[in-house]
Amino acid sequence: MQPIEVGVLGATGMVGQHFVKFLQGHPWFQLTWVGASERSTAKKYKDATTWRLAGAMPAEVADLTVEECKPGNAPKIVFSATDASVATEIEQAFAKAGHVVVSNSRNHRMDADVPLLVPEINAEHLGILPKQRELRGWPGMIVTNPNCSTIALTMGLAPLKQFGIRKLVVTTLQAISGAGYPGVPSMDIMGNVIPFIGGEEEKMQQETQKILGDFTGGELRALHAKVSAHCNRVAVVDGHLVTISVELEHKPKHDDLVHAFNSFTAEPQKRNLPSAPNQPVIYMPEKDRPQPRRDAERENGMACFVGRVRECPVFDYKFIALAHNTVRGAAGAAVLNAELMQSMGLIS
Amino acid sequence: MQPIEVGVLGATGMVGQHFVKFLQGHPWFQLTWVGASERSTAKKYKDATTWRLAGAMPAEVADLTVEECKPGNAPKIVFSATDASVATEIEQAFAKAGHVVVSNSRNHRMDADVPLLVPEINAEHLGILPKQRELRGWPGMIVTNPNCSTIALTMGLAPLKQFGIRKLVVTTLQAISGAGYPGVPSMDIMGNVIPFIGGEEEKMQQETQKILGDFTGGELRALHAKVSAHCNRVAVVDGHLVTISVELEHKPKHDDLVHAFNSFTAEPQKRNLPSAPNQPVIYMPEKDRPQPRRDAERENGMACFVGRVRECPVFDYKFIALAHNTVRGAAGAAVLNAELMQSMGLIS
Amino acid sequence: MQPIEVGVLGATGMVGQHFVKFLQGHPWFQLTWVGASERSTAKKYKDATTWRLAGAMPAEVADLTVEECKPGNAPKIVFSATDASVATEIEQAFAKAGHVVVSNSRNHRMDADVPLLVPEINAEHLGILPKQRELRGWPGMIVTNPNCSTIALTMGLAPLKQFGIRKLVVTTLQAISGAGYPGVPSMDIMGNVIPFIGGEEEKMQQETQKILGDFTGGELRALHAKVSAHCNRVAVVDGHLVTISVELEHKPKHDDLVHAFNSFTAEPQKRNLPSAPNQPVIYMPEKDRPQPRRDAERENGMACFVGRVRECPVFDYKFIALAHNTVRGAAGAAVLNAELMQSMGLIS
Amino acid sequence: MQPIEVGVLGATGMVGQHFVKFLQGHPWFQLTWVGASERSTAKKYKDATTWRLAGAMPAEVADLTVEECKPGNAPKIVFSATDASVATEIEQAFAKAGHVVVSNSRNHRMDADVPLLVPEINAEHLGILPKQRELRGWPGMIVTNPNCSTIALTMGLAPLKQFGIRKLVVTTLQAISGAGYPGVPSMDIMGNVIPFIGGEEEKMQQETQKILGDFTGGELRALHAKVSAHCNRVAVVDGHLVTISVELEHKPKHDDLVHAFNSFTAEPQKRNLPSAPNQPVIYMPEKDRPQPRRDAERENGMACFVGRVRECPVFDYKFIALAHNTVRGAAGAAVLNAELMQSMGLIS
Repeated sequence: MQPIEVGVLGATGMVGQHFVKFLQGHPWFQLTWVGASERSTAKKYKDATTWRLAGAMPAEVADLTVEECKPGNAPKIVFSATDASVATEIEQAFAKAGHVVVSNSRNHRMDADVPLLVPEINAEHLGILPKQRELRGWPGMIVTNPNCSTIALTMGLAPLKQFGIRKLVVTTLQAISGAGYPGVPSMDIMGNVIPFIGGEEEKMQQETQKILGDFTGGELRALHAKVSAHCNRVAVVDGHLVTISVELEHKPKHDDLVHAFNSFTAEPQKRNLPSAPNQPVIYMPEKDRPQPRRDAERENGMACFVGRVRECPVFDYKFIALAHNTVRGAAGAAVLNAELMQSMGLIS
Repeated sequence: MQPIEVGVLGATGMVGQHFVKFLQGHPWFQLTWVGASERSTAKKYKDATTWRLAGAMPAEVADLTVEECKPGNAPKIVFSATDASVATEIEQAFAKAGHVVVSNSRNHRMDADVPLLVPEINAEHLGILPKQRELRGWPGMIVTNPNCSTIALTMGLAPLKQFGIRKLVVTTLQAISGAGYPGVPSMDIMGNVIPFIGGEEEKMQQETQKILGDFTGGELRALHAKVSAHCNRVAVVDGHLVTISVELEHKPKHDDLVHAFNSFTAEPQKRNLPSAPNQPVIYMPEKDRPQPRRDAERENGMACFVGRVRECPVFDYKFIALAHNTVRGAAGAAVLNAELMQSMGLIS
Repeated sequence: MQPIEVGVLGATGMVGQHFVKFLQGHPWFQLTWVGASERSTAKKYKDATTWRLAGAMPAEVADLTVEECKPGNAPKIVFSATDASVATEIEQAFAKAGHVVVSNSRNHRMDADVPLLVPEINAEHLGILPKQRELRGWPGMIVTNPNCSTIALTMGLAPLKQFGIRKLVVTTLQAISGAGYPGVPSMDIMGNVIPFIGGEEEKMQQETQKILGDFTGGELRALHAKVSAHCNRVAVVDGHLVTISVELEHKPKHDDLVHAFNSFTAEPQKRNLPSAPNQPVIYMPEKDRPQPRRDAERENGMACFVGRVRECPVFDYKFIALAHNTVRGAAGAAVLNAELMQSMGLIS
Repeated sequence: MQPIEVGVLGATGMVGQHFVKFLQGHPWFQLTWVGASERSTAKKYKDATTWRLAGAMPAEVADLTVEECKPGNAPKIVFSATDASVATEIEQAFAKAGHVVVSNSRNHRMDADVPLLVPEINAEHLGILPKQRELRGWPGMIVTNPNCSTIALTMGLAPLKQFGIRKLVVTTLQAISGAGYPGVPSMDIMGNVIPFIGGEEEKMQQETQKILGDFTGGELRALHAKVSAHCNRVAVVDGHLVTISVELEHKPKHDDLVHAFNSFTAEPQKRNLPSAPNQPVIYMPEKDRPQPRRDAERENGMACFVGRVRECPVFDYKFIALAHNTVRGAAGAAVLNAELMQSMGLIS
């Protein structure tokens, strides 16, 4: 297969660096174009970027010249790692110019005509794209992935959708890498918990309803479930953990629930997408797992780990879910989205 | 006032050391007797103890001779910091010998005739003591305080009891000091979360119902509320934080709820007990407080801090509560219990 | 005694907050004036300041109106917590206007006519002040305290000055609070060491020579010792630890060295200055002490703790020293400097 | 090539687990035999072992039956991860029975007839083996690798041996994984430094002299250099960092020193041993690198990273060195030793 050229908008920031790292050696996509703010343009990527990730900057990207975040010579597929303050304008300009914008930014996630895509959960939501094109008049399109805490929750819930999800009370224990760089001051988080992350609870509550909802053929209909989130930052580098109490329409037996987790498979696995984990949701039988430092990086950071499935005295069941926030919750999520779209022939 | 002599059972362990530290300079109680396991007896306290707390070992205790944990020459009031594996036998032996056993151990907490006392919440539960004496035939008595995570939850809920507590879904983020010494291996908790603490969820669920229940005159009747707890260990030294979603019988307005927290006062404040905080529950209006490292030690570690009071999409309200686990959740709790009993004339 | 009014320049920043906290309840000095940058002036201190220290903002300061950092209505004594980028100009303006500027900033520390004062070590360096006045033509004066890592080293060395200090190889393990707020990003220091602190090694090397040097009557003569420093940031909140290998002119016996530490006393102790620790250097006999989290806050954070005194295979002895960087290494150091000057009648 | 069967003594412990993990997929060696204490024998490895490393237990080892640590059916090459309390007896029994014991234990490191091998530094020390065989009368042999902190120091010094190493003052900042499991209690290290590791300074001082010494043909002659070590435990998971001040016989220019680091290569590279890093010592030009969390795992954890090379005011140069303590400092070190011996035809 001929490599498909891709670009990254906001490539010099932390999220952008995660895209650069995740795309390294990708079997389908080749990163040939990097865009950033004016301050960086015309410099080589290696000169414009303070590389903050573990391991060295990928050599094949180091010498790319940073471009302005404007359509023109960019490839058809662009991943957006732009800051929320500029993402609306930039992403729309690219869609208007015919690009497929696969965005990690929050700006368009809740738009009625934009898929909030998790390939294992709602591949059919891509059916809204013709309506997006019609309404917006764009030759291109915008597709988004969820917030990094939402992904752990919704992946963990995906196998339970069949039982009818009615109520959710969840608490997150989120890693510092979710706040970017410089992000969380060490004086705030060392030996401490910060029991607040601006806008996060609202995002988790709304995004979860949209992701787990249905595409009716005409519109994306949110799941009619009540969701309450408590979001906290803890002293962990990578990996968001969520405690989940859930009320279901049809309460399964414990064994059936565990089986539902372990047997869950979906579109990315059927299509054998290159970034798809073999098993998207992995149930850990140990009494004290999953744990962020020990488990988040397994399966290349693309799986969701669940554990501690037990009866909930208030609802039906309680359990925990873990996902790697900068991989499955950001760069890896967007790349998997692009793989699904490519595989489905949506990118011509 | 003549100082009242007191003893500590299990004085050389971590909880015992917290008792020793907390009793230093106490206006009513004077620590004159320390008991420990055979290995330590007949040694001076300073020779039998590896002191692990910040600050120096109190000089007036350093030279006490460690006694066996057997009644005999011990003072009337003994605080029990004994390990659960031996607490039942030791505490009962002291009660049988006429001592007032004020225990931090879990062994008798759920006994129907033993008060699980939080002076701000259920001072009237002491009314069960005559029945305890009658049933057990002890000239002495046993009174207990709750688990260190239960205390943060129940103190935070105390001002809401008037609104009728019906359902609770809570998640704890608990400090490592709650596990004693050596306790949690650093390889397990550094940059990590351990989403499991053996027996803790069951304790929180049961103890909360007992603490918030009523004394009918004849028996202690548990609160008929559903409680679901998710317990986690996080990389914090001192201070247990709890996220709380609560359903109430009568939902107050937001302002009335905040007022309920701020205006809450109880028996220890009325009686001006020496270890009682001026204001037992302190509402913090900042968007990201309370926090364990910054707030747990305020008010000598004896208050409960609450914050982030907001509507819950599933129940009525959600908020967070914080208490110092080794002070308000252990040694300080027991000492306040003893102060209340002394003040009420229950210790003759 | 009538309280002496004092002010703090740069009062809203982190170092400024440490001054505000340290001065709370001071027996001699009363904080009545707070200065900050233009952005904050005319606001109340509580409105201009995001309070970041443990415990609440002192009530008596909360309602002070923040002034511009310009002489005028400021009290005679002003503590300078101003940023290095503006400290030269501001401090000189105050000295020119007749104020006694007791500075924690680095700007004037190495000036030949400015004392780099550690009251336990070089009180006689204040003898340079008449020369400062003469050279600068200021009715006021500037006195400085050392960098927060230098203080642990020089306090630990003070008792050894009698043996002739010739060579020093030292490595610091410094707390994050030394970098202010937001300071060190958690992504940099969590589970990590940052083996570099800009300018710190040079400061430690030069300041140590000046502090341990002599006042000849005419000038401050640096100690003719070679000093090599390796500075590192570690995941500790408060307390800088230093490993020290030292070559001496006259090597004492081990017992004599320990005795030198334990018996060390100096001017602040003789004068019974209110912030002076009873024993400025405390030798800890345990094999693994001092430790930052367990020891730095003892003695109100004003003592230096040393330990692990043993033979050095390369030089004569090696040992470790610990001091609280934001107390003894910043606010407390400056306040003790002012107390010494007040006690010596240098502030008329 | 036919796979060479190997065994691990003490395979269920933490160091043993590191061997099991490191040997997974090894191109020459196949782990077919695991030995442990009596408690574990006759169980399957997966049942006898609480797996504590990141990632899953290697499937091909999980079903091996654990054997007693006695010669018999063990393969020729056995790696020793046994506890120091039993290593002397066990290792000697295996050597006596004809096995090549490649040991990570400290017990025989300083024996005059046992190589303390670092293949990049002293491959010629293997020349002492005939003497070992002669003296001990063993058909087998014992070869050791250094302590995990010594390895970072000696690898960092290897390129400087040519300049004549005379004096060293070093301070370590060591990771918690170096203490095994449960190892360091979190109450001791969280937000703290433990400035003492039992026996570590002596080991670093002696082992460094032996490793950097020469094989004269008849004996191993220690390097005649003075070494002083300060050892500290810090809140880092993996990676020991060392600050180094060094006096040399012939002081090179700065550029020549950097060149010496970067151009250093040795026997394992020439022989292209499978676990050998391409470049054994990697100089990092950034002002604040290497750092444990960001760099220790690069190059499969087998390289030594150095940085911050600068003039030392007391000696000639100072710099820092970092190595992965459980890989290059333990399991990986021993495996590389075995590879060298195999490549040299010493294992028949």
